[in-house]
Amino acid sequence: MNINGNAYRTIWFESNTVKIIDQTKLPHQFFIKDLKTVKDSINAIKTMEVRGAPLIGATAAYGLVLSIIENNDQSFLQKSSEDLIASRPTAINLKWAIDRMMKKLSGVNSNEILRIALEEAKMIVEEDVEFCKNIGINGLKIIEKISNKKKDTVNILTHCNAGWLATIDWGTATSPIYQAHKKGIKVHVWVDETRPRNQGANLTSYELNEEGIPNTIIADNTGGILMQRGQVDICIVGTDRTLFTGDVTNKIGTYLKALAAKDNNVPFYVALPSSTIDWSIKDSKDIPIEERDPEELSYIEGLDKDNKLQKVLIYSEKSKALNLAFDITPARLVTGLITEKGICEASEKGLKGLFK
Amino acid sequence: MNINGNAYRTIWFESNTVKIIDQTKLPHQFFIKDLKTVKDSINAIKTMEVRGAPLIGATAAYGLVLSIIENNDQSFLQKSSEDLIASRPTAINLKWAIDRMMKKLSGVNSNEILRIALEEAKMIVEEDVEFCKNIGINGLKIIEKISNKKKDTVNILTHCNAGWLATIDWGTATSPIYQAHKKGIKVHVWVDETRPRNQGANLTSYELNEEGIPNTIIADNTGGILMQRGQVDICIVGTDRTLFTGDVTNKIGTYLKALAAKDNNVPFYVALPSSTIDWSIKDSKDIPIEERDPEELSYIEGLDKDNKLQKVLIYSEKSKALNLAFDITPARLVTGLITEKGICEASEKGLKGLFK
Repeated sequence: MNINGNAYRTIWFESNTVKIIDQTKLPHQFFIKDLKTVKDSINAIKTMEVRGAPLIGATAAYGLVLSIIENNDQSFLQKSSEDLIASRPTAINLKWAIDRMMKKLSGVNSNEILRIALEEAKMIVEEDVEFCKNIGINGLKIIEKISNKKKDTVNILTHCNAGWLATIDWGTATSPIYQAHKKGIKVHVWVDETRPRNQGANLTSYELNEEGIPNTIIADNTGGILMQRGQVDICIVGTDRTLFTGDVTNKIGTYLKALAAKDNNVPFYVALPSSTIDWSIKDSKDIPIEERDPEELSYIEGLDKDNKLQKVLIYSEKSKALNLAFDITPARLVTGLITEKGICEASEKGLKGLFK
Repeated sequence: MNINGNAYRTIWFESNTVKIIDQTKLPHQFFIKDLKTVKDSINAIKTMEVRGAPLIGATAAYGLVLSIIENNDQSFLQKSSEDLIASRPTAINLKWAIDRMMKKLSGVNSNEILRIALEEAKMIVEEDVEFCKNIGINGLKIIEKISNKKKDTVNILTHCNAGWLATIDWGTATSPIYQAHKKGIKVHVWVDETRPRNQGANLTSYELNEEGIPNTIIADNTGGILMQRGQVDICIVGTDRTLFTGDVTNKIGTYLKALAAKDNNVPFYVALPSSTIDWSIKDSKDIPIEERDPEELSYIEGLDKDNKLQKVLIYSEKSKALNLAFDITPARLVTGLITEKGICEASEKGLKGLFK
C-alpha cells in the first residue's frame, strides 16, 4: 500500500539483506531498516520493529534465510529456528512459518539450501499478500451489505493494527476496508488507540491517512459508548492465534470490544489468513499470553515543541505496572471469521468446512 | 489522607482564599494552588485542576463564596452560579451544590450573605467527608466477606480516580479499601490507567502508594483478561451521576469493565454519596456526555531524561481524535450501590428504600 504516494510492502529481500519498515518509529519517522543476521531478525521481532502475526511469520522465514547466509550449517539452522520461535510466544504464525521452512529444508544439501530457503520464504510472503487480498474481497460483501441498507457512511471500529503494516500488504482487518474504499463505498474507521503501544493511533490511523480513508482515533475506553449510541456499524479486528474452536487471541482489549458489540447487537468479525489458525490447542486457557516490559506503559515517546523525539516517564516511579499483551475473545462473541477462503462461523465446524 | 506522611484534604478555605491541590501536576509535582475569584474556580474545574464529582461540587460551592467576596451583588452571584454550572456538564454534584447554596442564600441580606455562604460551603465539605467515610464503613463489609472466604489477598479493580483526591477525603470507591487496609485485611488494587487523562495511573496509584496500599497500574484494555483468569475478586468504581433508575454515568470505559465483570461473575459495585444521585432524569440517553479537547489524547506530559516535565505529541498531526469523557453503565450490570446510608440494589426501589 501507499506511503507518501509510493507503494511499499512491509518486508522485502534485496542483496542478501532483509529490508523492513521500522514500525517503532512510525508515525513520526519513516525509516527502512536492514536486517543482516538471524539475531537482527529476532531483535526486530522482540522489539516490535516488525509486529502483527503474519509479518512476524514472514520475518521469521527470512530470518532463517539470513541464518543460512551467515552459517550454512544444520546445527546453526536448528538453533536459529528455536531462537526465532522463542522470540514472541503468542502469535502462532511465527511457529507456523518456521515449521514450514524447516520441513522444506529438511535433508536438503548445503549447495541448494539457500536457494530453496529463499524460494520458500518468498512463497510465504506472496501467499500472505494473496490471502490478505482475498480476505478483503470476502469481507467487502459484509461492508457492502451494511452500506446498501444504511445508505450512509459505514462506521467500522477496529482495535490495534491489523492493517497492511501487520502483514505484507493489504492487512487483515483493514483489507475489506481498502476494498470498500476502492469501490467507492463511504467508510469511516474508529481507531482504538490501543495502549500501551498505541498501534492503533500510530500505525492504523497512519496507514488509513496515507490511503485517504477517513478515521478518528479514540481512547480504548470509548468504543462502548459509541456502540450504545449506534455510532458503530461493525467491528473488524485481526488475530494472533485463532483456535480451531473459534476462540480468538488478539491484542489486549479486543475481548472488551467484543462484549460491547454483543451487548449492542453490533456485528463483530475477525479477519485472518489460515496461517493464524491453531489446529492443536483446544482450551484457550492453554494459549501462552505474553507479558511484556511494564516500561511500555510507564514511558511514552512523542515530539516535543522543537519537533524532536523525546521519551518521557508518565507515571510515578513508585508505581508498579503489569503489561499483558493479549486477551481471549470467546467464539460465542464472534459473529464470523473472514478468511482467504470465505467467511465462516467461529467454530470447529465453520473452520473445518473451509479448511479441512 | 496522607501525602508524604502529612494529612491533607483536597480543598480548604484560608484567609479569603480557596486552596486546592493542583491535580494536573500529580504525580510529578505536589503543588497547592490559590483560587481567589469565581473565575479561578471555574478555570480549576474546566482544566481539571480539581475533578471528581464530589470535589467539583465543593469547588463550586466555594466558588460562590469567592464570588461574594469579589462582588456582593445579587446579579453577580446569579451570573456566577450559572457560569459555574456550565463549567462541566456531566457531574451532577456541581448543579446539586450550586442549587443548595443558592437556595440557602436566597433573600439573605448583604451583611450576612458571606458568613452564611461560607458556613454552607463548609457544611457541604464536612458532609462529604462524613458521607465518604460511611461509604467506606458500609463497603468494608463486602471486602471483609470476600477476604474471609478467600483467606488470601483481595484483588480489587478500579477505574479512573474515585479516591480521596476526587472528594474531600477518603474517596468513594477507595474508601472501603482504606477501611479494609486499616483493619488489616490484605488488599491489592488493579488500577486502570484511564486514558486519556490517566487519572488512574496519576492519581489513584499515587494516593494508594502514599497510604501504603499495594497496587498495580494496568492499561484500560487489561481488566478483561484479568477477570477471565480469576485475578479480580471485585470491581469498585465511582460515579459522576447515578440516575434514580440505577443507571450509572462514570468515566469513559467503566461500561466495558462492567460488561467483563458480568461475563465473569465478578461483583461490580458503584460507590457514591447521595449528592451524586440524579432524581430527575429517567432515560440515560438524556444525560449530557461531555466531549473534551482531542488534544487530551494526542498530547501527554511526562518527565524527560533530565527530570523536566515535557509535553509531547504522541500521534501524527494528520490524525483526528474524539474525546468523550463518560459512558453509561446500565443498572443491570451493577451488583449494588454503596452509599453513605448503606448498600442497595441499583434500581429505583433500591435507592428510594434508602433515600426517600
